[in-house]
This record gives sequence, structure tokens and C-alpha cells, in this order.
Amino acid sequence: MISNDPYAELERRFGRLSAINRAGAILNWDRSTMMPEGASEDRADQLATLNVLAHEIMVAPDMPALLARAEEGRPILGVWQSANLREMRHAWTHANALPADLVEARTRAASTCEMAWREARKRADFKSLLPSLAEVVTLTRRVGEAKAAALGLSLYDALLDEYEPGGRSARIDARFDELATFLPGLLQRVMERQKLAGDPLPLDGPFPVEAQRALGEKLIRAIGFDFAHGRLDVSAHPFTGGTPDDVRVTTRYDEADFARALMGVLHECGHALYELGLPRDWRRQPVGAARGMVLHESQSLLMEMQACRSDAFIAFAAPLMRTAFGRAGPAWESSNIHRLYTRVAPGLIRVDADEVTYPLHIMLRYRLERAILAGDLALADLPAAWNDGMAELLGIVPADDAMGCLQDIHWPDGAWGYFPTYTLGALAAAQLFASACRADASLMTAIGQGDFAPLLGWLRINVHGKGSLVDTDTLLTEATGASLGTSAFKAHLESRYLPA
Amino acid sequence: MISNDPYAELERRFGRLSAINRAGAILNWDRSTMMPEGASEDRADQLATLNVLAHEIMVAPDMPALLARAEEGRPILGVWQSANLREMRHAWTHANALPADLVEARTRAASTCEMAWREARKRADFKSLLPSLAEVVTLTRRVGEAKAAALGLSLYDALLDEYEPGGRSARIDARFDELATFLPGLLQRVMERQKLAGDPLPLDGPFPVEAQRALGEKLIRAIGFDFAHGRLDVSAHPFTGGTPDDVRVTTRYDEADFARALMGVLHECGHALYELGLPRDWRRQPVGAARGMVLHESQSLLMEMQACRSDAFIAFAAPLMRTAFGRAGPAWESSNIHRLYTRVAPGLIRVDADEVTYPLHIMLRYRLERAILAGDLALADLPAAWNDGMAELLGIVPADDAMGCLQDIHWPDGAWGYFPTYTLGALAAAQLFASACRADASLMTAIGQGDFAPLLGWLRINVHGKGSLVDTDTLLTEATGASLGTSAFKAHLESRYLPA
Repeated sequence: MISNDPYAELERRFGRLSAINRAGAILNWDRSTMMPEGASEDRADQLATLNVLAHEIMVAPDMPALLARAEEGRPILGVWQSANLREMRHAWTHANALPADLVEARTRAASTCEMAWREARKRADFKSLLPSLAEVVTLTRRVGEAKAAALGLSLYDALLDEYEPGGRSARIDARFDELATFLPGLLQRVMERQKLAGDPLPLDGPFPVEAQRALGEKLIRAIGFDFAHGRLDVSAHPFTGGTPDDVRVTTRYDEADFARALMGVLHECGHALYELGLPRDWRRQPVGAARGMVLHESQSLLMEMQACRSDAFIAFAAPLMRTAFGRAGPAWESSNIHRLYTRVAPGLIRVDADEVTYPLHIMLRYRLERAILAGDLALADLPAAWNDGMAELLGIVPADDAMGCLQDIHWPDGAWGYFPTYTLGALAAAQLFASACRADASLMTAIGQGDFAPLLGWLRINVHGKGSLVDTDTLLTEATGASLGTSAFKAHLESRYLPA
Repeated sequence: MISNDPYAELERRFGRLSAINRAGAILNWDRSTMMPEGASEDRADQLATLNVLAHEIMVAPDMPALLARAEEGRPILGVWQSANLREMRHAWTHANALPADLVEARTRAASTCEMAWREARKRADFKSLLPSLAEVVTLTRRVGEAKAAALGLSLYDALLDEYEPGGRSARIDARFDELATFLPGLLQRVMERQKLAGDPLPLDGPFPVEAQRALGEKLIRAIGFDFAHGRLDVSAHPFTGGTPDDVRVTTRYDEADFARALMGVLHECGHALYELGLPRDWRRQPVGAARGMVLHESQSLLMEMQACRSDAFIAFAAPLMRTAFGRAGPAWESSNIHRLYTRVAPGLIRVDADEVTYPLHIMLRYRLERAILAGDLALADLPAAWNDGMAELLGIVPADDAMGCLQDIHWPDGAWGYFPTYTLGALAAAQLFASACRADASLMTAIGQGDFAPLLGWLRINVHGKGSLVDTDTLLTEATGASLGTSAFKAHLESRYLPA
């Protein structure tokens, strides 16, 4: 198809692509929350078809010419249009880097390996996973090589670039080295301090699901979650899905422990607010999408870790918790709840880790996945390398691989290059939150009154509303005065866990 | 695209079309049950995009050649493949009969008119609807003319053919004439009989929603609804949606009256069982789809009217109702509940009508929509014609048009030619149920024990499992020994409402 306005034609095609992907996002949400179990093959067929339709738009034979002609005309485009065209080119390069058979082989291998992983984890049997995981690694390398060639990047950076456009391992190495120098000493001091202070009092359940749900809803409504454009439901694995106009947050309730679901809901609410705040005029074009996993994770961690585990917020939330569950007494004082919510302890499981030890879990995975992809670590040696790393970084060793190198879905699922974005997100969260507090001295006081408008207002302007207009480091520099670093994160940990 | 096996290529394309439509069906269900109100424009964009993608498959330039080549090779196809090819041709003819701008104009006019109708009905103001309804009629005529030319049918039959493939007004006229001769006399005798018997005792509420939901779920589970392949939820307007592997039934609960939601759920369950029973190997091809609206409505009415308003079923269900709501006493005896569930009274509103008067509502609409499309009745004269028809057929006249010609969404929504399928469905339901009972003398006894397996088994073989293999009349003839007639329906009404 030849168009007189190649850029307009590209917007039309990417708008259609967006509609297909948004439809798929709702169907994915339904699959995890509503779908009867007998419909999984039916749904897989629907989603595969939508993927094919989306892919066909990206690999249409006239796309290179359209992109090239639009890029020639670039001077007449506005700043959003130019950035949109850049993002179109980036998405097109990723989609066209891989031959169709490799895409299909990778999807199939990941699906097979994920099923094997569920069994292997149950039986703590890493050996049974080896063949399918080896296939995933082989195909991930082929994907990485193809993308590296298309993007002019190293293999690992090409994989990382899928999750965090512009992310580079050299910069990750530098940040992680700083954390490796800092965290072990901090951890030791925090543990000593906690030991002296004694254990906080436990909050005894049961906590009825409906009361938990109502409390979570009340708190995220206060934070700014818009129920005219979103829902809160239940799924086995909490996530934020849907579309920017229709965000679907999920959680999982445990009647013995309300804190986990509640903090999970606040975490997902951070993701949701990012989506809800994407630029209204551009959210159906590439430039209006969330910037990448680093900023996405920064928004959930900013909400959960920076804002909602603060003294100020817990002082606001504690009376609501007492009312929700009809409890009182010393355990339900906000000071005790704050101690519970900021408890630090090296543990075996990443998803259960506190914010001090979490980066150590990530550094281990980052180190191992790079070694495996580079061929420096044989898959068969992964369990031993994992356990050595745990001993070195956290001082503990799992009793079996289920609690060790089999705990995460990422590698079996083919998500290599994803892990570092968690910790980069934590760094960005601290950096953004510190800047927001500097910009508005009353922001923390407002949070202590359950008023998130000042924080949300700042995030809307400095993060959410920018979509993918600029890259992550540029956005951070514009918002905080510096590219992504560790100083704000380190200062945050010291001030929260080692207050003077 | 040139294929060596044109039929296989067609199956591939129609399979993709099916996946797109199934995805759309889930998104439509979500829109009515789950979607936050602020997402309607987002969802409309997703659904419009899926419609365009589906339409593009149908109007692909190489489709005529593919169909023609497959039809040349037809002798080598099996019976299902041949029927599938026939259905593909039929779907293609419908889709290609209309120019794209007419499809779009019709959709837009219906959408505008539907919005105007909601307002007009609220204010009982038919005049305000006239301009947008006139536009819908004009475009419906153009659609009918285009389809009449493509299909070699009259204008009305071409419209009817969208909802009931093979349906013809000449046969409808004959059946409706028989009903017109029969029903008024029957109605009079039933009313007299009811008057002599006195009023049944009312069932006093409130009936908590959760108890209603649990009872409905229990009963449809007993009937054979498979919750591994379906759900029961709430929506403003009850419907059955989703896909044959993932059927989504909805209802609306009224705490003052449980009978309505319960009968509604049983009615939708009949639709759902049809979808769930479609031929497993073909349900993603045209030949595996439900045959048309007549058989679809027959399945809901067979379940609701024939099976679940029977003495036998109500004797089974009454104790469950008493337990569900913790009630007892004379009003809750099954004989009284049966009298409540088979109450006959001429009323103004179609959706509230009993099975004796319902066909009279349909005959009125059928007569009027044909006259309007033929140009024999001016739209401005519709309210008067409606009221005259009500007086003649049911002996009552609405006080305003909200209770009269503004009550139904069909005409504003562009669904002309749809109404007769309701009553043809009622005829088919009676005919099929009578045959099932003849084929298995213990079927009614089983229903009285809450055992629907014999009925469902018969329906699976004689209706559901045939999909669109043969046309409606052939299917009925194979299943019942005769094409669609009125005698079983008349016998049913006489035996239920005028027992000896």
C-alpha cells in the first residue's frame, strides 16, 4: 500500500496493532481471573491468532519503505510524532530481527519448559528440567544473536533491550558493583540493630477476605486508583494487566496474613497508576506506552516501598486496619506495624525478600544468567553455582533446588535479561521519590493524611505523562537532575533502617 | 495467495475468522459484566478493529477463486467438509453483498438510533425517534435490496436469512395463520379456566441474591451445564455469550421475585447447552456453528418452557426452593408454584409474556415490520398501527408508546427480520420435546427426578451435535419426522393449560 502521508499510515497501522494488543491484554486478564479451566486451549488459540495478526502488521513487506519515507520527512513532525516514529522503528526492528520459525520455536520451547518447570519445582528435581531448559537457552542465544545483529548490541544487551529499551549491561555492572560494596555491611548493621530492638508483635488472624478486599480498595482509592477505569480482582499470581483506560489489578488473599495481599495491592496500584497516567493523546501509539520495565517497576516500588512502608503512611493506615479487622492492642499500634512492615532478614525466596536483601537475589541471577548465555557456566552446574552465590551474598544455602535455582519462572519461561530491571526499578523508585519530596516539602505530610494528590501530581508530570517520549535515563535526568544511580537508594535504606 | 488445496486454505482462513470472533465474544461478555464504565470507548475501538480484521478475511480478493476452486473439487470432500464449504459460501455471500460504506452507515445509524431510543422510551416520545428510525429503515432497505440481489430472495427474506439461514416468510405466514386461528380461542378458554380456579398464592420475598445464585447454579448443574466450560454472572440484560468451549451465561437478580431470574437462568442454560454441545471437531468452522436463531431459541424455550415449567420439574425443584430460601407453607407447595409458573394473562410487554400470548406479540411485530419495509406503513403511523394490532390480538391497548411500540430494542438497533424467530423457536421447541418424549418414555420421569441426562442425550444427537450440517427444516424432519409445524405447540398448550 502506498500512502501520500507515510507517517499517518504508520499511525493507522500501529493504532490497529495497539487495539489488537489491548484486546489480547483483556483476554489475558480474563484467563487468569475468570476463565473456566476447560477453556484454556480455546483461549490459547484466540491469543495466538491475535499475536499472528499483530505480527503480520509488523512484518508487512511495505513497512521498511513506509518507515524510511516517514523518516525522510521527519523535520516536519512534532516532538511527539518524531519520538513516535523512533519507537515504531525500534518495535519494527525487534519484530523483524527474528525469522518466523525462531519466534515459533522459542514460544513452543518456553511453553514446554514452563510445564516441565512446574513439575520439577514440585519435586525439587533440577535434572528433569535440564533438557527443556537447555533448549530454551539454545533458542534464547539464537534470539539474542539475531537481535544483537539487528540492533548493533551485545547478545545480553539485545535481550535486555526487549524489556528495557536502551538498558545496557555496562551500566548495570557499575550500579550493581556499588550495591555489592554497600549492601552487605548495611545488612549486617540492620540485623544487629533489629536484634537489639527485639521482635515486633505478630498480628494474629484470621483476616476475612472480604475485609481485606474492602481495605485494599479503600487504600488504593485514596492513592488515586480510578475504579471507573480499572478493577481489583483475584488471581493465583498477582499482576497488573488490561489497558491504560481499563487497568486490571489482581491479588491473592491469605486469611492468616493480610499484610502480604495489602502490600501486593499497593505495589500493583503503583503499576496501575503508571498505565492510567500515560499520555491521553498517545496511549494507543508506541510513544504513549510505558517506557520500559525499569520505570514500570520503579512505579510499583515507589508506591509500595517508598510511600506505603513509610512511618507516615502506616500511621495513617493503622487505624483503618484496626477498624477493618476489629482489632486493638499493642500489636496494632502503628509503630509495631511499621516494624513488621520493615523487617529485614536474609531469606531463600526472592519474592518474599525485603528491600535490603532483594538486590542481592537479583545480583545473583544477573551474574548467573550472563554466565550461562556466555557459555561460561554449564547448565548442569547451575544448582551448585546458585548455592555458592547464596552463601556468598546472603550467607544462607537452600536445602534443595525448589528453594534455590528452581524458584523463579523467568528462565524456564524464556525471560532472560529481565531480572536486573527489578533492582534498577528499586533504584529509580528511590531517586524519583527523593526528588518528588524535595520538590514538594509537604508531600510526605500529605501521604501521612492519606492524601496522595501531591505525589501523584508530580509523577503524572515527571513520569506517567511522558510515556516513551524520551529514554529512561533522560526521563530520570529531567525529573531528578541525574541519570540512574544508587545514592538515593542507599540514602533511603540508611534513613529507614538505620535512623540516627 | 494460491493454494494447492483450496478447501484446506479456506478452513485455515475460517479458523482464523472463528478465533477473532471468539475473542470478540469474550470481550463483549466482559463489556456487559466486568468492564469499568470508563472503558467503553477503548473497548469499542478493540471490537471495531476485530470486526475489520474479520471482514478483511471475508472480502479478500482471492476468496471468490478459492471458493470456486474448492467447489469444483467438491466430490472428494466428506459430508462435513461439503456442508462446511456450503456454509462458507453462504457467509461469504452475506459479507460481500454489501459495500463497505453501507455496512459502516448501517452500524452508525443503528448506534445513533439506539441511543435516541433509550431517551425516547424514557419519555414515551415516539416522535423524537422518528428521524433516526427513518434512517435505520432506509439503510435496512438498502441492505435488504443488496442481499436480496446477492441471494436471489425477496427483501424481507434476505434480512431474515441473516438470523435464520433458509428462513422464508411464505412458511412463516402459513404457521402464523395457523396460530392466529388457534390462539385467541385457546386464550379465552384458558382465562376462563384460570378465573374459576382462583389466584395462586404469592411467594413473598425478599430472596437474597446469593441464595438465588446458588439455587440457579445447582439447577443448571443438574441440567448439565458444565462449569469447567462456562460461567454464570450478572448483567443488566441477561444473555448467553462467550464461545462453545467457554459459555458465559448472565442473569439479573431481583430480591423481591426469584422466579424471574431463575427461569431466566434456565432459559439461558438452554442456549448454553446448545453451544456446549456443538460438534467438537467442527465448532471452529462455519459448519460447526449453531444452525440459526430458530433452533437457538428452540433450545432455550425447550429448557425453560417445555422442561422446567412442567409439573414434573417443579415437583423436583419446589423442595430445593423451600430449602434455598428457608420457606414453607401452602404457597410453597409445588402445585401452587406450578400455577404461578404457568399463569396466563394478556399483557403489554413482550418480554414479560407467557407462552400462550407471546406469539401474539410476535405476530404483531412481524406484520408491522413487513409493512414498514414494504412501504405499506409510514413510520409516523406506527404507534396507531401498533395500538390497533394490540387491541385486535390481545384486547388491550398501551397508555403510551413506552409500553407500546417503543418497548423493544430490535428495530432501533437495526434487527429487522429477527422477531419471527422467537415464535418459530417456540414451535420447534414443542416439536423437538414431543419427539424426545416419544423416543424415551422415561424422559419426563427422569426430569421429575432432576435427571436431564436422557433429554440432553437426545438433544446432543438430534440437535446440538449437528451444528450447521443441514438446514433447520431438514434437522427437524430428521429429528421429529416433520418439518416445522404448529401441531406439537398447539398440543402442548392444550395439554398444559386445558388439561382434561
